[in-house]
Amino acid sequence: MSDLLDRINSPEDLKLLPREQLPQLAEELRAFIKDFTNTTGGHIGSGMGVVELTIALHYLFEFKQQDHLIFDVGHQCYPHKILTGRRDQMGTIRQKGGLSGFPDPHESPYDRVKTGHGGTSLNTAVGMAMALRNRGEQADRKVVAMLGDAGLQEGSALEALNYAGVFDDLPLIIVLNDNEHGIGPSVGAFMKYFSKVRSGTIYRAAKGNFKRLTKMMESASPFFGKFTYDVADRLKSSIHGLVPVIAPGFLFEALGYFYYGPIDGHDFPTLLEALEDCKSFRRPVVLHCITTKGKGYSYKQDRLAYHAGKPCKSITAHLPAEFSAQGGPAYTDVFVDEMMRLAEEDKDVVAITAAMLEGTGLVKFRDKFPDRVYDVGMAEQHAVGMAQGLALAGQKPICAVYSTFMQRSVDQIFQELALINTPVVMCLDRAGLVGPDGATHNGVFDITYCRMFPNMTVMAPRDGGELRQMMRLAVNHPGPTAIRFPRTRTPMESAELPRLPFKVGESEQLRDGNHGCLLAYGTMVYMALDVAGEIYSRYGIELAVINARFAKPLDAKMIARECARQPVVFTLEDHNLAGGFGAAVLEHANQNQLDAGKIEMFGIGDVFIDHGQRVEALAMAGLDVPTLIKRVEQRLGLKKEAVGNAEPAAKIKPRVLTH
Amino acid sequence: MSDLLDRINSPEDLKLLPREQLPQLAEELRAFIKDFTNTTGGHIGSGMGVVELTIALHYLFEFKQQDHLIFDVGHQCYPHKILTGRRDQMGTIRQKGGLSGFPDPHESPYDRVKTGHGGTSLNTAVGMAMALRNRGEQADRKVVAMLGDAGLQEGSALEALNYAGVFDDLPLIIVLNDNEHGIGPSVGAFMKYFSKVRSGTIYRAAKGNFKRLTKMMESASPFFGKFTYDVADRLKSSIHGLVPVIAPGFLFEALGYFYYGPIDGHDFPTLLEALEDCKSFRRPVVLHCITTKGKGYSYKQDRLAYHAGKPCKSITAHLPAEFSAQGGPAYTDVFVDEMMRLAEEDKDVVAITAAMLEGTGLVKFRDKFPDRVYDVGMAEQHAVGMAQGLALAGQKPICAVYSTFMQRSVDQIFQELALINTPVVMCLDRAGLVGPDGATHNGVFDITYCRMFPNMTVMAPRDGGELRQMMRLAVNHPGPTAIRFPRTRTPMESAELPRLPFKVGESEQLRDGNHGCLLAYGTMVYMALDVAGEIYSRYGIELAVINARFAKPLDAKMIARECARQPVVFTLEDHNLAGGFGAAVLEHANQNQLDAGKIEMFGIGDVFIDHGQRVEALAMAGLDVPTLIKRVEQRLGLKKEAVGNAEPAAKIKPRVLTH
Repeated sequence: MSDLLDRINSPEDLKLLPREQLPQLAEELRAFIKDFTNTTGGHIGSGMGVVELTIALHYLFEFKQQDHLIFDVGHQCYPHKILTGRRDQMGTIRQKGGLSGFPDPHESPYDRVKTGHGGTSLNTAVGMAMALRNRGEQADRKVVAMLGDAGLQEGSALEALNYAGVFDDLPLIIVLNDNEHGIGPSVGAFMKYFSKVRSGTIYRAAKGNFKRLTKMMESASPFFGKFTYDVADRLKSSIHGLVPVIAPGFLFEALGYFYYGPIDGHDFPTLLEALEDCKSFRRPVVLHCITTKGKGYSYKQDRLAYHAGKPCKSITAHLPAEFSAQGGPAYTDVFVDEMMRLAEEDKDVVAITAAMLEGTGLVKFRDKFPDRVYDVGMAEQHAVGMAQGLALAGQKPICAVYSTFMQRSVDQIFQELALINTPVVMCLDRAGLVGPDGATHNGVFDITYCRMFPNMTVMAPRDGGELRQMMRLAVNHPGPTAIRFPRTRTPMESAELPRLPFKVGESEQLRDGNHGCLLAYGTMVYMALDVAGEIYSRYGIELAVINARFAKPLDAKMIARECARQPVVFTLEDHNLAGGFGAAVLEHANQNQLDAGKIEMFGIGDVFIDHGQRVEALAMAGLDVPTLIKRVEQRLGLKKEAVGNAEPAAKIKPRVLTH
Repeated sequence: MSDLLDRINSPEDLKLLPREQLPQLAEELRAFIKDFTNTTGGHIGSGMGVVELTIALHYLFEFKQQDHLIFDVGHQCYPHKILTGRRDQMGTIRQKGGLSGFPDPHESPYDRVKTGHGGTSLNTAVGMAMALRNRGEQADRKVVAMLGDAGLQEGSALEALNYAGVFDDLPLIIVLNDNEHGIGPSVGAFMKYFSKVRSGTIYRAAKGNFKRLTKMMESASPFFGKFTYDVADRLKSSIHGLVPVIAPGFLFEALGYFYYGPIDGHDFPTLLEALEDCKSFRRPVVLHCITTKGKGYSYKQDRLAYHAGKPCKSITAHLPAEFSAQGGPAYTDVFVDEMMRLAEEDKDVVAITAAMLEGTGLVKFRDKFPDRVYDVGMAEQHAVGMAQGLALAGQKPICAVYSTFMQRSVDQIFQELALINTPVVMCLDRAGLVGPDGATHNGVFDITYCRMFPNMTVMAPRDGGELRQMMRLAVNHPGPTAIRFPRTRTPMESAELPRLPFKVGESEQLRDGNHGCLLAYGTMVYMALDVAGEIYSRYGIELAVINARFAKPLDAKMIARECARQPVVFTLEDHNLAGGFGAAVLEHANQNQLDAGKIEMFGIGDVFIDHGQRVEALAMAGLDVPTLIKRVEQRLGLKKEAVGNAEPAAKIKPRVLTH
C-alpha cells in the first residue's frame, strides 16, 4: 500500500522521486495519517490539508541546513514529521514519551521551533531572513513560513507583516495556507477579503464592470478628451470590485510583498511551479495557497474532531484506572451552561472568545444568543481590550480564553483591566496541565500573571457547582476577575460536601484535623480530600482540608489560624510554583509574621511538562495522589513509622480517584 | 492673551463659541501649552499637533455621557485636559499629586481609560461601539478613537482593525492622527503606504500612468476588441501607482471601513465638515487627518525633547536633595556604549527595539551600525519573535525594550524564548519606578513575568560597570536572559568596591556584618550600602550588604549561609512584591528548609504607584533610604533603644545619597 512512503526516510529520499510519482506519495501519506490518527487521535485536519504543500516544499528546498521552514501553530506538521524520518514513531504522537503534536527541535533538526501558540511564524521567519541578509546569503537561502489564514488574525503576525514589507531583499516566502478557518471559522476583515478572492464573487463583479466599461468606451469613442475622465470616474466607483480581479493580493502588494496566487494547494504541477518561482524572487513573497482542511478526511460533520481528531479506538484502556473513572460533566460544559443562565437573567451579560468558540463550549451559547457572543478570532489582545470597552459602556463581558493563550494579553490585563479596575470576568479554560497538547498548551502560569497586578481577584473552583458560584460572584464584582478551571471532568459532587454561598476572599474548610492542613487550590481540592482520606485510613490521623478558592485576595484569617494551629500547611496547585498560589500564601505568611516554615508547597517545579494524558502529566509533575501521599508522609514523619511496621505496601489500597 | 480660553471651563462653554472664533482659540490653546510645558516639561509634540482636532471633536460631540472619546497612548491628551475643566491644574502635570500626563478616569468623567501603552484605543472603542449597538443606540451615539499612525503598528490595534471591519453598523469613528511618527519615525509597511499617500508620489505616478493610458487609447481606438484587454494589462502593471490615487484609503476600504481623507488636521472648516460627515455615517469610518506633530513648537532640532519636552527651567530645585546629587552616566548611556563595544568585537551582535531607538539610546548605535539595529516600531511581540529568528539563525540579538512595554511580549518570552531555550538577551530599560510617566510606565512586574518561566536567567546590575559585565555574560549565555535597569543615573562608582568577574547565579558581598543582611537587587544595592552605613553610624552595628545580581537562578549557597548566620535577611527590590525578587528568595528558602521567618521583603506593595519624580515615587513605595532605615530599625529592635536614648533625631545626619 505504501510503496513509495516506505522508502522515504528523509527529504533526501523524497528528492529522488520523479515528479510524476508525487501524487501517489501524497495519496499514501494521506492514508498513513488517516490510519495512525485513527488510533492515536490528534489534530488531523491541518495536516491532511497540507500534504501536497509539505511534499512540494521538501522536494524543492533543503530545510536541514540550507533553508529554514517555520510552521505557524504547528498542527500542520504531521506530514512534515513523517517525511523527516519520524514515520515509524507517528503512532506515539501526543502520548507520554512519544512524539510531540507540534514541531520540536528536540526531535529533529528539521524542526526549528516549538509552536503551539499561533501567529508567531512570521516573527521568527523575519528574524531568520534578516540574519541571512546580514550575512549576504539572501540569494542562496530562503526562509519559508507556513501560516494558516487564521494565524493572520494574531497581532504578532500582523506586526511582522507590517514590519517586513518595507525590505525588498528579504529571502522570505510566506506560504499562506488558506483553508478558510483555523480552530473555528475565521473571522475578521482579512478573512472576508480572502473569501471574496476565493469565491470568485470579485471576479464576477469585476467582469460586469469591464463589460460596462467596454460599452461606454464604444459609445464615447468620438470624444476622447472627456472620455478618459469618464473612465476614471467609472473606475473610481467600481474600484472595490475591480481591483482584486486585477491583483487579488492587493492587500499584500500594498504592504510591499510580492503576491502570488491564489493557487490550488493540492495540484502538484501548479505548486511546484509556484514554489520554484518564489524561490527565484528577491523580494519577500506571499504565496497564497487554497487548500481544503482535512482533505481526504470524512468526519466533516464534527468540526472540532476534524480539527483535533478524537481517536476512534479508546486509548483510555492503556491508562491508569483513575482516568476512566466516572466524573461529572466537563468544566467546559458547566461553564457554558452557567453562561446561558446568566445571559438569560441579565441582558448585559455577553461572551467574548478568541477562536475558541468550540473549545470553550461557547458555540452552544452562540446558538442561543448569536448577538451576544464575540469570537474575535485568534486575537487575544483584542478580546481583552474589547471586553474593557464593553464593560466601560455598561455591559458585563465574560472573556473565555485558554489559560495558555491568555499569556498574549498580559499587558491588557495590566492596562485595560487592573489599572482602572475594569469589571471584566476572565474564564481561563484549560488551566493547569492539559495532557496531549503538552508544554505549549499547559496553562500553568496564569495564577502568577494574574495575581501580580493590583486590583485583580483570582480564583479557582473545586468543582462544577463552585464554578457556577464563582461566575456569579465575578459577574457582579466591581473589578477584574480571573477564574481558572482545567481541561477535565468536574469531580462527582458529593452530597456530603456543603455548598454554601461565599464572598470574595473566603475559603472553605472541607475536613478538619490537626495533624496538618492541605490547603488546596481549584482542581487540587478533591485530590487533597483523597490524600487526607488515605492518610487517615493508613495512620488514623486527621488532616484538615481547605478549599482556598482565592489566590487573591487570600483568606487571611484562615491562613493565620492554620499556620498557628497546624504542624504543617501544605499548599496544592496545578500550576508552576514560581509566583503561584503557594508562593502567594508564603508571601502572605511572611508579611504577616506567620510561621512560614510550616508551609510546604506542592505544585509544578521549574520545568516545562511535556505531553501525555492529563493524569500522566500530573504524575510527571508529582501531582498525583500517590506522590502527594508520599510527600505528606515524609514531611509528617509517617513513612518512617510505616517502614518500621514493615508492612507499608499492604496499607496502600487502590481506590478510584475522582481525577 | 487668553481671552477665549479663559472662558472655557468645559466643553459646554466651547460649544457656545461661533465657528469663526475656533482658530483664535486654537492659537490661545497652543500658546498656553507652550507656556506651561516650558516650566513643567511633558510630552508636548503630540498635544500641539491635535489642538484643532481636539477642539473640533469637543465642539461637535458630547463626550461626557453621549459619545465616547478614547485616546490611544494618551500623550495627545493635553488640549483635551485643558478643555475639560483642568486648565488651571495643567501646571501640576506629571508631578506628585498633580495631573497625570495621560487620560485618567480618576481625574475627569471625560477620561474613560488610562492609556500609556499604545495601540489599545481601537480594542476599547470597538467594545464600546459594540455595546451601543447591542442596546440599539448606534444611530444616536458615537465612539471616537483617536489613534496616532504609530499606534497602528501594534498588534493589538491591527487585531481590532481586522475584527471590526466586518461590522457595517458599528458607531465607530477612528481618527487616524497621522503625524508621520510616534516616539521615533514610524516604520513598517503601513507607514510607508501612508507616507506615499501623504507625499503625493502616488498621485504623480498615477497621473503619468493616466497620460500613457490616454495615449494608448487614442492610438488604439480603431481596435476596440483587443483594446480593452490592453487597458486591463496596462492597469495591471500600473496598479501599485494607480489605485491609491483613486482611493487613497484602499487598505482601509479593503478591510471594510469607510475611508475619509486625507484631510488637513489643522484646518477648521475641513475638520468640522469631515467630522459632521463622519457623524452621519452608519459604517465604521477611518478619518485620516494629516497633522504636524509639535505644530507651533520650535525645538524641532531635538526630536526627543520634542516628544517629551524637557523643562527649560529646572524643576529639581523643588525636589529632595538626592535627586540633584551627582551620579555617573545614565544607565541608558552605559547600555548603548557597551552595545557599541560588543558590536565592534562580534559582527553577530545585533540590536532590536520597538519604537524606542531614542529612549534606549540605540539611536547612537544606529548611527554607527545602521544595518545592525532593527527598530520594528511599536510592535514588542514582533521584536521578541524576530529576535528568536535572528538567534536561531546564529546571530546574537539584544532586544532593548522598556520593562513596562515588554509586558506585551510575555507570551513570546514563553514560547519563543524560554520553551526552547533561545539565546536572546532582553535589556529592560526603565525598570522599576519611572517617575513622571507614572503607573502606566512603571516597570515593576518584569522580575515576576520573566522568572516564572523555566530556562530564564534574570538579573539586574548594581551600577554601570556591572551592567557592562552582565551584558557580556548574557551575550554568551546559551539561553534567554533578561537584564533590568532603571531610568536614572548610574551611581558614582566607588573605587573601594571590587569589580570581579562572575558567573550566572553568583552574588557578591559588598559589606560584612552579622546583625542582619541587606540582600539587594539591582538599583537597590547602593541604597542598601547607604542604609548599612547609616545604621552603623547610628548604632555601631554592622549589617552585611549583598548584591544579589540574579533573581534567577538565585545564589543558593549565599542564601543558605545568610539565612543560617543572620538574625534577619532583608530583600530589597524596586519592583512589586508579588512574585518578585523577594518572593523568589522566600520560595527558595521554603523549598530548601531554610529559616524563611528571617526574611523580610522590601519592595512595592500591591498598589500602582502614581507619577512624581523617581525619588518621590520610590518614597511613595517606601523605598527611600529614610523609610528603609526605619524599617530595619524596627525589625532589629533598634528604634526602641534609640527612643530610649531620647535623641534619635540628632543621630539622623543628612547625607548625599547616590540615588
